[in-house]
Amino acid sequence: MRGVVDYERVRSVSVDQVATLEPEDCVVQCMPDVSPAKWHLAHTTWFFETFVLEPHVPGYRAPSPAFRTIFNSYYEAVGPRHPRAERGHLSRPTLADVMSYRRQVDAAMARAFESLPAQALSLVELGLHHEQQHQELLVMDVKYNFGASPISVAYKPGQVATCEAARPLQFLPFEGGLVELGHAASSDTFAFDNEGPRHERFVHPFALANRLVTNGEFLAFMLEDGYERPESWLSDGLGWVRQHDIRAPLYWRSDAAGERREFTAHGELKWDPNAPVCHVSGYEAAAFAAWSGARLPTEFEWELAAASCSSTGFAALEDGRLHPGLPAERSYPAEGRAIGCGKELSQMFGEVWQWTRSAYEPYPGFRPAQGAVAEYNGKFMSGQWVLRGGCVATPRGHVRPTYRNFFYPHQRWPFTGIRLAKDVR
Amino acid sequence: MRGVVDYERVRSVSVDQVATLEPEDCVVQCMPDVSPAKWHLAHTTWFFETFVLEPHVPGYRAPSPAFRTIFNSYYEAVGPRHPRAERGHLSRPTLADVMSYRRQVDAAMARAFESLPAQALSLVELGLHHEQQHQELLVMDVKYNFGASPISVAYKPGQVATCEAARPLQFLPFEGGLVELGHAASSDTFAFDNEGPRHERFVHPFALANRLVTNGEFLAFMLEDGYERPESWLSDGLGWVRQHDIRAPLYWRSDAAGERREFTAHGELKWDPNAPVCHVSGYEAAAFAAWSGARLPTEFEWELAAASCSSTGFAALEDGRLHPGLPAERSYPAEGRAIGCGKELSQMFGEVWQWTRSAYEPYPGFRPAQGAVAEYNGKFMSGQWVLRGGCVATPRGHVRPTYRNFFYPHQRWPFTGIRLAKDVR
Amino acid sequence: MRGVVDYERVRSVSVDQVATLEPEDCVVQCMPDVSPAKWHLAHTTWFFETFVLEPHVPGYRAPSPAFRTIFNSYYEAVGPRHPRAERGHLSRPTLADVMSYRRQVDAAMARAFESLPAQALSLVELGLHHEQQHQELLVMDVKYNFGASPISVAYKPGQVATCEAARPLQFLPFEGGLVELGHAASSDTFAFDNEGPRHERFVHPFALANRLVTNGEFLAFMLEDGYERPESWLSDGLGWVRQHDIRAPLYWRSDAAGERREFTAHGELKWDPNAPVCHVSGYEAAAFAAWSGARLPTEFEWELAAASCSSTGFAALEDGRLHPGLPAERSYPAEGRAIGCGKELSQMFGEVWQWTRSAYEPYPGFRPAQGAVAEYNGKFMSGQWVLRGGCVATPRGHVRPTYRNFFYPHQRWPFTGIRLAKDVR
Amino acid sequence: MRGVVDYERVRSVSVDQVATLEPEDCVVQCMPDVSPAKWHLAHTTWFFETFVLEPHVPGYRAPSPAFRTIFNSYYEAVGPRHPRAERGHLSRPTLADVMSYRRQVDAAMARAFESLPAQALSLVELGLHHEQQHQELLVMDVKYNFGASPISVAYKPGQVATCEAARPLQFLPFEGGLVELGHAASSDTFAFDNEGPRHERFVHPFALANRLVTNGEFLAFMLEDGYERPESWLSDGLGWVRQHDIRAPLYWRSDAAGERREFTAHGELKWDPNAPVCHVSGYEAAAFAAWSGARLPTEFEWELAAASCSSTGFAALEDGRLHPGLPAERSYPAEGRAIGCGKELSQMFGEVWQWTRSAYEPYPGFRPAQGAVAEYNGKFMSGQWVLRGGCVATPRGHVRPTYRNFFYPHQRWPFTGIRLAKDVR
Repeated sequence: MRGVVDYERVRSVSVDQVATLEPEDCVVQCMPDVSPAKWHLAHTTWFFETFVLEPHVPGYRAPSPAFRTIFNSYYEAVGPRHPRAERGHLSRPTLADVMSYRRQVDAAMARAFESLPAQALSLVELGLHHEQQHQELLVMDVKYNFGASPISVAYKPGQVATCEAARPLQFLPFEGGLVELGHAASSDTFAFDNEGPRHERFVHPFALANRLVTNGEFLAFMLEDGYERPESWLSDGLGWVRQHDIRAPLYWRSDAAGERREFTAHGELKWDPNAPVCHVSGYEAAAFAAWSGARLPTEFEWELAAASCSSTGFAALEDGRLHPGLPAERSYPAEGRAIGCGKELSQMFGEVWQWTRSAYEPYPGFRPAQGAVAEYNGKFMSGQWVLRGGCVATPRGHVRPTYRNFFYPHQRWPFTGIRLAKDVR
Repeated sequence: MRGVVDYERVRSVSVDQVATLEPEDCVVQCMPDVSPAKWHLAHTTWFFETFVLEPHVPGYRAPSPAFRTIFNSYYEAVGPRHPRAERGHLSRPTLADVMSYRRQVDAAMARAFESLPAQALSLVELGLHHEQQHQELLVMDVKYNFGASPISVAYKPGQVATCEAARPLQFLPFEGGLVELGHAASSDTFAFDNEGPRHERFVHPFALANRLVTNGEFLAFMLEDGYERPESWLSDGLGWVRQHDIRAPLYWRSDAAGERREFTAHGELKWDPNAPVCHVSGYEAAAFAAWSGARLPTEFEWELAAASCSSTGFAALEDGRLHPGLPAERSYPAEGRAIGCGKELSQMFGEVWQWTRSAYEPYPGFRPAQGAVAEYNGKFMSGQWVLRGGCVATPRGHVRPTYRNFFYPHQRWPFTGIRLAKDVR
Repeated sequence: MRGVVDYERVRSVSVDQVATLEPEDCVVQCMPDVSPAKWHLAHTTWFFETFVLEPHVPGYRAPSPAFRTIFNSYYEAVGPRHPRAERGHLSRPTLADVMSYRRQVDAAMARAFESLPAQALSLVELGLHHEQQHQELLVMDVKYNFGASPISVAYKPGQVATCEAARPLQFLPFEGGLVELGHAASSDTFAFDNEGPRHERFVHPFALANRLVTNGEFLAFMLEDGYERPESWLSDGLGWVRQHDIRAPLYWRSDAAGERREFTAHGELKWDPNAPVCHVSGYEAAAFAAWSGARLPTEFEWELAAASCSSTGFAALEDGRLHPGLPAERSYPAEGRAIGCGKELSQMFGEVWQWTRSAYEPYPGFRPAQGAVAEYNGKFMSGQWVLRGGCVATPRGHVRPTYRNFFYPHQRWPFTGIRLAKDVR
Repeated sequence: MRGVVDYERVRSVSVDQVATLEPEDCVVQCMPDVSPAKWHLAHTTWFFETFVLEPHVPGYRAPSPAFRTIFNSYYEAVGPRHPRAERGHLSRPTLADVMSYRRQVDAAMARAFESLPAQALSLVELGLHHEQQHQELLVMDVKYNFGASPISVAYKPGQVATCEAARPLQFLPFEGGLVELGHAASSDTFAFDNEGPRHERFVHPFALANRLVTNGEFLAFMLEDGYERPESWLSDGLGWVRQHDIRAPLYWRSDAAGERREFTAHGELKWDPNAPVCHVSGYEAAAFAAWSGARLPTEFEWELAAASCSSTGFAALEDGRLHPGLPAERSYPAEGRAIGCGKELSQMFGEVWQWTRSAYEPYPGFRPAQGAVAEYNGKFMSGQWVLRGGCVATPRGHVRPTYRNFFYPHQRWPFTGIRLAKDVR
């Protein structure tokens, strides 16, 4: 993914993502965790300007120097930043200004491409993957902002099919053993630094659920007072539940008649008992698992299971399905089912991010890259949990067995769900 | 101010106020005290819909019922409200939607005018004065939001004249005595309920400064460590200074070369030592006064002085000067000087709101109006201080001796300044 | 009150107040507003050391210099202070250490008395009144700390009589007019600086309730959803109610059987419908008054009524009744009734502090004393409301018509109650 | 450790620990993380009452039922709890009351011992280890409370020797491989549930520092602006540093002359460059390691290294050295050096808890115990980091290679220090 074509393809997706939004929709920030759509569009552009154009293109002059501060996310080495929680305070630059900024940087990139050194080209590739990450964030964030509004707005209006009844829940056994996990440096496919190095790890025998937990199953937990049973909860989780008076997944609602509803990117829909439960925190996922007599998988168990199957079944993922940033929430094609490994393991990829009980830590031998880009992943390795598998909003190229997503266990505005695991004795 | 003409005139000013703003500028809310420009435009419209059209126009149907909640400010009796601090979270309705809402309500009002009963007409009048209050708030709020931006934006670009050197500060004696103050119900001019009833009050002899405190005088206080001298400060004020690390008036700044600057509605300007100090809190005003060996006036002293002069000098206020919402900060015409009472008392009206040391309390015999409108003023009578005189952003009709503005003593985003007073023995 | 005898008498009361307490009881601080008993004992001693011994006794050396910081309350001019909210973090000096400190200072005072200059003697007098104020605070604070404990403890065990049925509530008319209020400097009785100067004030005709509001009457307000009726509440009050989920006066409780109880200095008692309601905030008092179709009196109305009666009826206050710091809550002797003025006005003094709707402001011509002692009262003149009358814990010498107590309107751990007033047309 | 003798021995240590404290010292709680000494004494007693006497001794009646709530720490299954942050608000029960409660429970235990079933005896053993953990917490907490006082107090007055110059820092290589770690269920020695099960784990080759990081080395980090270099810090760590303005280890101070000092359990001492740095957070430890070009070890690396040496060198730990609760901070006997494994690895045990970079997670196959005691360790497995090795305040029986201590990475009031590690390629 190094050429002009890739650059233009990825960059145009971001622009497409806001095509149906009003300028006002691109400004607001309803909690500190989300960013305005406008900010995503500008920050991804800032990345190319800061890490490619300024250091590698002689004579390049930033059209708007103030953007260096405003659109820096967390790169301490690059200079001061605008406070994250105040991104929604900025009316300027306007959406039109940001689009103009994008065009200026894209034009400079087009002019520069031929003469960029190899090091810069690999930063371009990183920048495109970075932009794809923000494309997914943009969907999460727009959904959250619309969800916070008393006026019902659909990011992507349209019909959504009802899910078929879920297959019976089964725990599929895996032998484990001394295995190799992580992305190999020798691979010619892109991966983020935190996916490697590939390394040996001893995995104990385990069993993994053949599918995701459904809304209906999670409702049973709620109806049996799951949120009030201290014995199911981690101590921090119980504190979070009580402080914020949590009683259901993030977007579950009731209408005036008391009918259950769920807010989605397609607007408020009828609650579907067969759909995978989504927008639960890691604490809720762990409590549900404990209440079920199971547990969450480790990220190593998950990757081992996924890798053993991916060569066949998961390749069948339909390309048109994972619209970058335009999710068709709740259409779960049979193609997602992994059958190549001889196990009926489905829904591993592209449905919901699956909480693992693994804290986000560096792999053995991990070394962050040098320079400001080094801040990319390594500095978050504290307090977060790893999630695996990708969701409906994940760009297809980011759906792979080694991809390590990470969030704090209280966060649930990403598309997060639950797959159970068990020990095998 | 009861006819269609007044209605259209006042309503059109609000629309004019946002003519130079981008949609994005009308969404943001940089602190809970301010409201988005879009919100002001809609809330003032909601007032007419809620208090005039719905109760008095048979068959009127609100075009957007959700607006009842979103654009209710604090009228508990009318129903639930959107949380004040989250007004900036609403991207919808868009600015265009709000303008459409204004036109719909204005059309319904135009149709209804002839048949409105007297009670409704007096609510129309109240609604127009209410809208004028919001026109001033809109200017304060837009200025604050722009002031919080790292990108310098001017609400009203243009040249601003430098002030002439201030006249020597003098304290003009007033005799006081048993006087009548407040708005008389028998008057045929409009006043808010909190300006009455007119009542007797005993005022002790006092002296009032002939002009406002200047930037230069306030700088002297700062340079003599005024912010660090506990003996000058009220206890609550000192706590506020320390908690927020306050060191200067709100919009005072330094440029890269260390030159003093002041952010205004016209953008960042050269700091002017002769301009009246503006955007100081009540705590700062009281501390400056104590440090000066003086005190703030009571609201009664201020009104007595203003009333004794207003019949002549203040009438000379130039109409074109107080552009509603489009302040020419820092142009202090000689006409503002009150000379009719035999005293060289200037700058009483239309420059800056002048902090008094009077807590905002009801006048003897005050009774709030009945119904939801009763919440208008009475419910704020705790913890706030009275300010008098009007500022450059105050609509001209609101500049009168009896007008009682009120803010918490820590607030300084209104155009607030200082006039000193002293006891006379 | 200037001699050694007064000094010893007042000082010994403080020591008596803690006679029944354990050392542990004297350390804790259950909210920032209260202070540990130990702190009161030391701070009142610090006052004499700092303002009398150090400046006026040559060669005096503080036995423990660190106490200057620890036991300074708010005198900025005297130097740094230990943070108020952390007074309960100090295990040292122990109670025994503080008692030793008291004895050392008392001995030095005894040696110094004869040679003290007049100025110092007036500081001694101020210090004794200051200590008496802290004697009342100590009772309030010990009650609060015990009330916060899951283990029921009585500060003053013993039997408490049930109140007789309250007299019918009547509003007694007063003519008002141009009157003199406040403490006269020419008087030979002690008063705090904020009680003067005596000054003219115009008071409009008003009516004052003949007695305090009872528990039973306040219960009726509660049962009619008084806490949920926005129209009765000041805006700040409603915010306070909602933020803290206030539903009843501070010490009202229910036992396991659902019986109403009230926590008192005598432990938890049966709730008495005839007792004056106590431990309500100013916000609750104002809401109750509004709900009743009445209002709170101004401090001037209260003083005028009290003064007109005090020469006869109130003089009958029984000396033994107002035990300093050892309140007999709920014994309301007939002697408290003011009948000398021809009005059946009772319960004006020594029952509960009566909220007025007057913000705490300086009287006309008020000048704080010079020096550090000047911080005594003047610096609090913002945001607080005036209360009048004294309570069961008030030392008898502080029960007088001109005494101005002041608290923030949300505070209710003092012994605070309600007397209603009305306009007279 | 099951008999009456063990019971009496362990229980008496707790009493000894407070022998030199005043009652006031046993009440205060200077931050929510610490508990009053009195609370520790009562809570450890509550454990025996709740888990041994009440379920296993027919007819046992708790002398003070209210203590069930007050002295429950976090056992949700046992019922309501007193809020942790308000433990310092309780003056009652007094220290004397708590001592009486201890004697009552001890007497009941003595009577019950012979007839206790095996299950109860294992809860007694757990209770004694639990009490030993609180003995260490008591030392940490008393130190913190004294450290927060403006009056300098020493928990254990006495002379403390200066440390010898540290040996040169060396990184000792370990081969790693597929190893067994954790406590074996078949062992006849006590371990907490979270130390097992013993399990296979693949450990990559690594190198471990031969000694702890010294004060002098940490000072070098500070002097080279270590606290201001974002590239060394985890993102959460940098946020913590900035929010709390952290600039040095917890107890480092300067005296009036600018000399560095360190507050210890022996009072404020001269700062010793050769002593191991202590009272640093996990964030500080990780930042120091990154700045040094090294990293923190994983808990598995640490245990592997410790286990390989412990059979010889560490056995030499002098019994009298680790006084429970009476630490001799800063006396580092040669006996602590592990030489048996052919490596000069010292200071592994009983000096300071050594931060690892391992998040606190369950071992493969971990199952919490059933019943309320199950809450003991499992529910904290989120957000905390593992520490190894024990400190000067750790009871000797808790100093073992498999012991897993855990704290949040911002906490530093335990005796926490740093040992470095590196990858071996």
